[in-house]
Amino acid sequence: MKKTLDFLAEHHDRYERELIDILKVPCISSNPEHNQDMRDMAELLKKEMRSIGMDEVKIIETDGHPVVYSEWLNAPGKPTLLIYGHYDVQPVDPVDLWDSPPFEPVIKNGKIYARGSADDKGQIYIHLKAIEAWLATQGSLPVNVKLVFEGEEEVGSTHLEAFINEYEEMLTADYVVISDTPMFREGVPGITYGLRGLAYLQVNMRGTSTDLHSGSFGGLVKNPINALVEILAQMKDEDGRILIPGFYEDVLPITENEHTKLKNLPFDPDEFASSIGAPALFGEAGYEYLERLWARPTFDINGIWGGFQGEGAKTVIPAEAHAKVSMRLVADQDPDDIAKKFTAYAKSLVPETMEVDIDAMHGGFGYVTDLDNPGLQAGVRALKRAFGKEVDFLREGGSIPIVKVFADIVKAPVLLMGYGLPDQNAHAPNENFSLYNFHKGIESIVYFFEEVGNLK
Amino acid sequence: MKKTLDFLAEHHDRYERELIDILKVPCISSNPEHNQDMRDMAELLKKEMRSIGMDEVKIIETDGHPVVYSEWLNAPGKPTLLIYGHYDVQPVDPVDLWDSPPFEPVIKNGKIYARGSADDKGQIYIHLKAIEAWLATQGSLPVNVKLVFEGEEEVGSTHLEAFINEYEEMLTADYVVISDTPMFREGVPGITYGLRGLAYLQVNMRGTSTDLHSGSFGGLVKNPINALVEILAQMKDEDGRILIPGFYEDVLPITENEHTKLKNLPFDPDEFASSIGAPALFGEAGYEYLERLWARPTFDINGIWGGFQGEGAKTVIPAEAHAKVSMRLVADQDPDDIAKKFTAYAKSLVPETMEVDIDAMHGGFGYVTDLDNPGLQAGVRALKRAFGKEVDFLREGGSIPIVKVFADIVKAPVLLMGYGLPDQNAHAPNENFSLYNFHKGIESIVYFFEEVGNLK
Repeated sequence: MKKTLDFLAEHHDRYERELIDILKVPCISSNPEHNQDMRDMAELLKKEMRSIGMDEVKIIETDGHPVVYSEWLNAPGKPTLLIYGHYDVQPVDPVDLWDSPPFEPVIKNGKIYARGSADDKGQIYIHLKAIEAWLATQGSLPVNVKLVFEGEEEVGSTHLEAFINEYEEMLTADYVVISDTPMFREGVPGITYGLRGLAYLQVNMRGTSTDLHSGSFGGLVKNPINALVEILAQMKDEDGRILIPGFYEDVLPITENEHTKLKNLPFDPDEFASSIGAPALFGEAGYEYLERLWARPTFDINGIWGGFQGEGAKTVIPAEAHAKVSMRLVADQDPDDIAKKFTAYAKSLVPETMEVDIDAMHGGFGYVTDLDNPGLQAGVRALKRAFGKEVDFLREGGSIPIVKVFADIVKAPVLLMGYGLPDQNAHAPNENFSLYNFHKGIESIVYFFEEVGNLK
Repeated sequence: MKKTLDFLAEHHDRYERELIDILKVPCISSNPEHNQDMRDMAELLKKEMRSIGMDEVKIIETDGHPVVYSEWLNAPGKPTLLIYGHYDVQPVDPVDLWDSPPFEPVIKNGKIYARGSADDKGQIYIHLKAIEAWLATQGSLPVNVKLVFEGEEEVGSTHLEAFINEYEEMLTADYVVISDTPMFREGVPGITYGLRGLAYLQVNMRGTSTDLHSGSFGGLVKNPINALVEILAQMKDEDGRILIPGFYEDVLPITENEHTKLKNLPFDPDEFASSIGAPALFGEAGYEYLERLWARPTFDINGIWGGFQGEGAKTVIPAEAHAKVSMRLVADQDPDDIAKKFTAYAKSLVPETMEVDIDAMHGGFGYVTDLDNPGLQAGVRALKRAFGKEVDFLREGGSIPIVKVFADIVKAPVLLMGYGLPDQNAHAPNENFSLYNFHKGIESIVYFFEEVGNLK
């Protein structure tokens, strides 16, 4: 390995120069004005893949922005890694709040500031440079690698599922690797092994055919806002436990091992509350803070509306009231099953004075990788070797729907080896990426290839 | 009385012609383009008052549209009636839905169709014609009369309270008479002896300083919409009883007599529900339908909003959630006291994870006249004589704030002798007024003057 590590040290400055170059491309996928930039970025990646020694390099068209694909499959008998990332970036508004222009990368205090630095161009570049170092110094990789970099992650990966389905055979792999998540704290590497899922619904409550005057009708009719709040208030008890019958049936409890690891992560509830301007935190009784966020399902009302919302007073009993509700799910809850259970329970609470429509809008499964999974263990060893620290075992409270799609179609465990930091401002002004993490990231992927190569 | 009644019969057609004339004036108080029409209408009324024989006829300026005032005080020792009405009308939109132009009165099936026909120009004209008939045939009235016709009722009587305060002495009276309410059913006269009051508040709930992503924060923070619905759901029990401590303390129960009268009024709950498109009615258990509407206080959420209300799904935990709530009150509930009780109870339910602001926006007392009041009894006898039917004793579920102002400043009972019908479309297209009620109304006021004159 020494040769390879020396190569990293030797090319340290070039890596940063190249990173700056790719961060200059304003490849905002949501804005059609940047379609040429998207194309330029794909071409740049294609060129880069060729230059580092990947085979079968190609830009594959989709109905949206293209996927840049390449492979190196010259390690027969060795595991195959499918490395997924995305080359598109978020919009930059409000651009006034950036300290430096979003597409003119600036290095300051060990961080590079630019849109896409952490999410996700900086992180995909880690993999390219690790491959380059192996091929340049060893002439081969100890594993087989497939690179899939899409251009639509920031617009919901609209065409990726169709792509994965279409190229199912080409995408066969033993592990899917994604570097698009943050570490938990500076200086300590982390691996994310769980994600929450989602069930999102809209509740439409109708009391009468038109709005009524509360003087002429109040006392005679049920108000649909009153009915809606009464129903929604029965979704959770005072301890934050969700009351939908059967809701917790398929929840995979966390293991003793996970619990211990999670308890060891530093989390200051007062500091956290004050960082978001909350008087105090709240969560399900009987669970650790991070457990509530990562390993327990939730019930939140994401929107509610009905009646008069303007200035002043209007004494109306509205005809209708509406709410958007969602439940963050955990493995192995099925979003369709949860949507059905919510609907049945909500309907059982609707009084005969009301008509209700409940629309299940969308959903996704949660995801969890076994901590003993050999690929995950290889990642942990690699991260520890590079950073010289015990690895944080993390989950993510949100969803990355594409993870479950990869897991289901490629049928391989997904390893989330992310190198961002909590203050990376991924979708906000002053997005940044730690250069320490960038270089240590390259080193860790160099080790990771070796560790995975040793698995069989 | 024969002479006077003959006069009514003789001038029957003229009354309708004159009514048509005053309904042609488009005196919409809310639209400054009609300021000249407002002035023309005031001048028309002034001329009419002079022509029927009123004294001290004058247009009194306010900071808005003027009040038309006159008096006839030549019955020393007799009671004084202050007759209040308004000469302004509602806007006519949507004008497309009118079967005939709103200011071109049309007589059809015994009704006159025009904006202002029932609300309130047709009803104030009843009083003018009754005075005319007395003075033309008897040379005097058996009571003292003061007429106060304002031009701002449809814009909230903005300057009327100031006017009443300024002219307190001029407005001294034994009874205030207002004809601006509907009867309960066609052909049966009604007198309205009670109104509900109101306490209207806004609740602002804040959980955090900014909106949060439900994936990254859900399970760790209390959602202000969840908190708001939980609090609002605790305002009423399943039987529709309001749970605010002390809420019912000052509620004047209805008497046995009132209860009997109210039970005798026809009310078909299924027909009523289907007329408003409600699956079924709902109200406080243990009370008659009309009692719930007229004599029991309510709690309604008039508006609610927070979070995402657009198309699709957004997984946000909003920073804030808001609701407008109001309670219809009955005598003797004090709106300030009720606002305080609501605020104290709501605050007691707010969890420590939330910050709440509760603004008491406005309120008004309910009102009730004793059924044994001599003036009310005089009105009942007069209505029975004119219509030949037992009189319906009615309350109104809404508020007429100016009633309480009159009651408090003039310190006289307010008699609501209204001649509209339930389908009069007062604020809607095709407003109409029954000509039967118009003529019987004039006759009933002729009797009413006699009945009140006999009181002392």
